[in-house]
Amino acid sequence: MPDQEERRLKVDLDAIKVAVQKREKRFLRPLLEELQPYDLGQIFFRLPRVYRPHFIRMLDPGDIALLLEELKTEEQQEILTTLGPEKTSRVLNLMSSDEVADLMGELEEANVNTLLKSMERDEADKVRALLHYPEDTAGGRMTMEYVSVYNYYTVEEVIQYLRREAPTAETVYYVYVIDADDRLVGVVSLRELLIAPPDTPVVEVMFERIISVTADMDQEVVARLIERYDFLALPVVDVENRLLGIITIDDMVDVLIEEAHEDISKLSAVGQTEMDVLTHPFASARRRIPWLILLLFIGMLTSTLLSTFEESINKVAALAFFMPMIAGMTGNTGTQSLALIIRGLSSGQLTRDKYTQILKQEGLVGIIIATVCTLLIVVMVTLLYDLSLGLVVGISMWFTLILGTLGGTAIPLILHLLKVDPTVASGPLITTINDVFSLLIYFGFATMFIHYLFP
Amino acid sequence: MPDQEERRLKVDLDAIKVAVQKREKRFLRPLLEELQPYDLGQIFFRLPRVYRPHFIRMLDPGDIALLLEELKTEEQQEILTTLGPEKTSRVLNLMSSDEVADLMGELEEANVNTLLKSMERDEADKVRALLHYPEDTAGGRMTMEYVSVYNYYTVEEVIQYLRREAPTAETVYYVYVIDADDRLVGVVSLRELLIAPPDTPVVEVMFERIISVTADMDQEVVARLIERYDFLALPVVDVENRLLGIITIDDMVDVLIEEAHEDISKLSAVGQTEMDVLTHPFASARRRIPWLILLLFIGMLTSTLLSTFEESINKVAALAFFMPMIAGMTGNTGTQSLALIIRGLSSGQLTRDKYTQILKQEGLVGIIIATVCTLLIVVMVTLLYDLSLGLVVGISMWFTLILGTLGGTAIPLILHLLKVDPTVASGPLITTINDVFSLLIYFGFATMFIHYLFP
Repeated sequence: MPDQEERRLKVDLDAIKVAVQKREKRFLRPLLEELQPYDLGQIFFRLPRVYRPHFIRMLDPGDIALLLEELKTEEQQEILTTLGPEKTSRVLNLMSSDEVADLMGELEEANVNTLLKSMERDEADKVRALLHYPEDTAGGRMTMEYVSVYNYYTVEEVIQYLRREAPTAETVYYVYVIDADDRLVGVVSLRELLIAPPDTPVVEVMFERIISVTADMDQEVVARLIERYDFLALPVVDVENRLLGIITIDDMVDVLIEEAHEDISKLSAVGQTEMDVLTHPFASARRRIPWLILLLFIGMLTSTLLSTFEESINKVAALAFFMPMIAGMTGNTGTQSLALIIRGLSSGQLTRDKYTQILKQEGLVGIIIATVCTLLIVVMVTLLYDLSLGLVVGISMWFTLILGTLGGTAIPLILHLLKVDPTVASGPLITTINDVFSLLIYFGFATMFIHYLFP
Repeated sequence: MPDQEERRLKVDLDAIKVAVQKREKRFLRPLLEELQPYDLGQIFFRLPRVYRPHFIRMLDPGDIALLLEELKTEEQQEILTTLGPEKTSRVLNLMSSDEVADLMGELEEANVNTLLKSMERDEADKVRALLHYPEDTAGGRMTMEYVSVYNYYTVEEVIQYLRREAPTAETVYYVYVIDADDRLVGVVSLRELLIAPPDTPVVEVMFERIISVTADMDQEVVARLIERYDFLALPVVDVENRLLGIITIDDMVDVLIEEAHEDISKLSAVGQTEMDVLTHPFASARRRIPWLILLLFIGMLTSTLLSTFEESINKVAALAFFMPMIAGMTGNTGTQSLALIIRGLSSGQLTRDKYTQILKQEGLVGIIIATVCTLLIVVMVTLLYDLSLGLVVGISMWFTLILGTLGGTAIPLILHLLKVDPTVASGPLITTINDVFSLLIYFGFATMFIHYLFP
C-alpha cells in the first residue's frame, strides 16, 4: 500500500480509538462517512481485539454491512454472533444478496433457516434463489441488486426510476430492459441515458445485441468476457432469456487473479490452491504429498532404468557426473516451453488452428537452443576430460534438449485436447518425465560408443 | 468464447462481407451500431485480407477510432497508412489520448510530429503531455478524458455538464471536483449525484478523503489499489495535488493479468514476457538462452563436484542410480515452497512480520514430507537392493528434502528483502541449486558409509 494511504489510515485509526475509548458515537460518524469499505476493514483489523466489540456496537447496521463485505466468512460469523438477532437481521437485509448467500453457504442448515426467517421476505427470497448455484458459476457469483425497466419506459422515466433504486443497487451504470414476459431485450448505460433526449423511448437508445451469460457458466468464462468487452457488469439469464441477476467487474477481477494464482500453484504441484499462505503445516503437507509420492515412484523407475546401464557406469564412472546436468537442462527447456503454452492456453491466444504452428515454432526454438548448448558443452567437456566424452555428452544433450522443448509443448496441448486441465502437467511432472527420457538417451549413446570412451 | 457469441459473430461477419462486396455503406451502418468494439476487432481479423481495405474505407472515423483501440500497434500503423492524412487526423482526434500516446510511442519522432501537427490543438497537447511518462507508470497509463468540475457547482449543474461531456469522456461515472487553483478537492460518483437533491452544492455530497496516485507510481501499485477499493477509476495527481488524468479499471485489469503471467514466465525462466505466444523462434531462443547458459555452467559445476566422488561411484555403481531421483525430489519440494512464497509476496499476504512464521511453517512441512518420503524409499530400496543402500539413500533424502523446502522458502524471501524481484529465483534456478547441494549431501553420506555398502 502506498505510504500516503498508510499514513492516512493511522490517523483515522487513532481518532477511532479515541472515539471508542470515550464511547462517543458522534465522534465516530464524520470519520466513518469518509471511509471506503476497504479502509473500514483495515481499521477493524488494526484495532486491538478488546476494542472491537465496542467498535461494532457503535456502528450502524449499514456500516456493519459494509464492513462484513470486506471480511472472510469466519470473521463475519464471529461478528454476527455478537450482534443479537434483531441487529443481525437488519444487517443482513442491508448486505448484497450475493454476499449473504456466500456467508450462508458456510453455515449449518438450521442456522441458515433461522437467519433467513429473520430477514425481510424479499431479501430472503433473493438469497434462497442464490443458494442454489454452485459457488464458481455465474449463478453463484451474481447479485440480484440490478436495475431493470420495462421496454415502454422513456429515458426520463428510467432516470427517475434509477434515482429511487440507486441507494441499494449494485451498479446504476447499466440498466437492463425487459419485455412484458420479463425477457431481457436490451441494455442501456447511464451514459447513453444522459446523452439522450428525455422523452425518447428507452428501446430507441438501448443496445439490443446483448452479451449475456447463463447461470451455469463457469466463472472463469464470465471473467474473460468482461475483460474482453471492458464491461462493468454482465447480465445472467435463464434458458428463456429471463434476467436472473448481474455479475459486476469487481468480483470478476478477483476471479481473474485467483485463476492466475491457481495456474502458478498447479504448475508447481502444490495441489489445490491454499487461499491463505499461512496455514497448518499438516494440512499443507497432506496436499503436497500425493504429488511427491507419484514423482517418487517415477524417480524409482528412473533408477531402475539406470541400473540396466550398470556395466557402462562401472567402466566409465565419469559418465555419471553429467547425468544431473543433462537431466536438469532437459527439464529446464521443458519448463520454459510449458510456461509459454500454459499462458497461451489460459489467455485464449492458442486456438486449435495454431497448434501445428506453435509445435513448429518450439521445435525450431529447441533446435537453436540445443545447438548453442551442445557447442558449449562439447568445448567444456573436451577441455576438462577428452573429446570422445565431450561428443557423447554433447550429442546426447542435443537430442534431449529438443525432446524437452517438444515435450513441454506437446504434453500440455495433448492434455488440453483431452479436456484435462493442462496445468496438472505441472513443471515437476514434466521435469520428471524428461529425466527418464533424457537419461535413456544419454546412456543409450554412451553404451553405443563405450568402446571409444574406454577402448 | 461461449458458442453463442461465436455464432453471432459469424452471422455479423457474413452480413458485413455482403455489404463490403456490394460496397453498400447503408447496409453496414445498422450492423456496426450494435457491435461492441471487441466484436468489431474480431470481425476485422476474420475478414479475408482482400476485404479489409474496402471495409476500412466504408467506416466512419468514429468506427475506425474504436477499431484501432482493439488492435496492436503494428496493425494500427498499417491501417493508418491506408487512410490518407485527412482521415487519419480525424481518427486520431476521436481516439482516447492514452491510446494515441501509446501508438505514437512506437513511431519515429518525425512521424510523431507530423501526426501531432495534423491533430486538433487540444487533443495534440494531451498526447504530448502523456508522451512524457514511461509506459508502465500511472502517467503512462492514464487518460485525459476525465470529467472535472469546480467546487462551486451544484449537483444540477454537474449533471448538466456531464451531459455535454458524456460523448467523449472515458468514464462519466466519477466526477472530480477541483478548486480555483485546479487542486483536486473531492470526488463524487454519478450514483451520489442521482440521489442528491439537484440544488445541493457538489461539495456537500463529494468524498473528500480521495484515494489518488502520482504520475510516477508503478502501474502494478495502481492496479492493486483499484482492486482493493473496487473503484472504476483512480485520479492521477502531481505533487501539488493538481489533477493530471485518470486511470480506469479496464486498463488495470489488463495490468493485473499481465503481471500474473509475468510471474509465471519468470518462474519458468522464459525471460521477459513475450506478449505474443506465437513469435519468431530466433527472438524467442535469444530470450531463453542466457538463462540456459547460466544453468549449464551451474550444471558443469555439479559434474565437477561429482567427479570428486569418482572413487565411491567406481566402488558402488548403484549409488549413481539414485542421483536423478534425489536431485529431482529436492527440486520438486523446493518448487512447491517457492510457488507458495511467490504467491504470498505478490498478493501482499506475506508481510515482513510473517517471515519467521512462514519459515517455521515450511520447515515443519519439510520435516513431514521428508519423513514420509524417506520411509517409503528405505522400504523400496531395501526390497530392490539391500538395507544399507536403502539407509544411505533414505537418510540423504531426509536431509535434502528439508533443505529443498527451506531453500525454496528462504531464497525468494531473501531476494525480496534485498529488493530483487523474487521471481528471478525461478524454478529452474532453485532446482539447479538444489541439485548441487542434494548431490553433495548424498555422496557425502555415501562416502562416509562406503565400507558398509561395499564391505
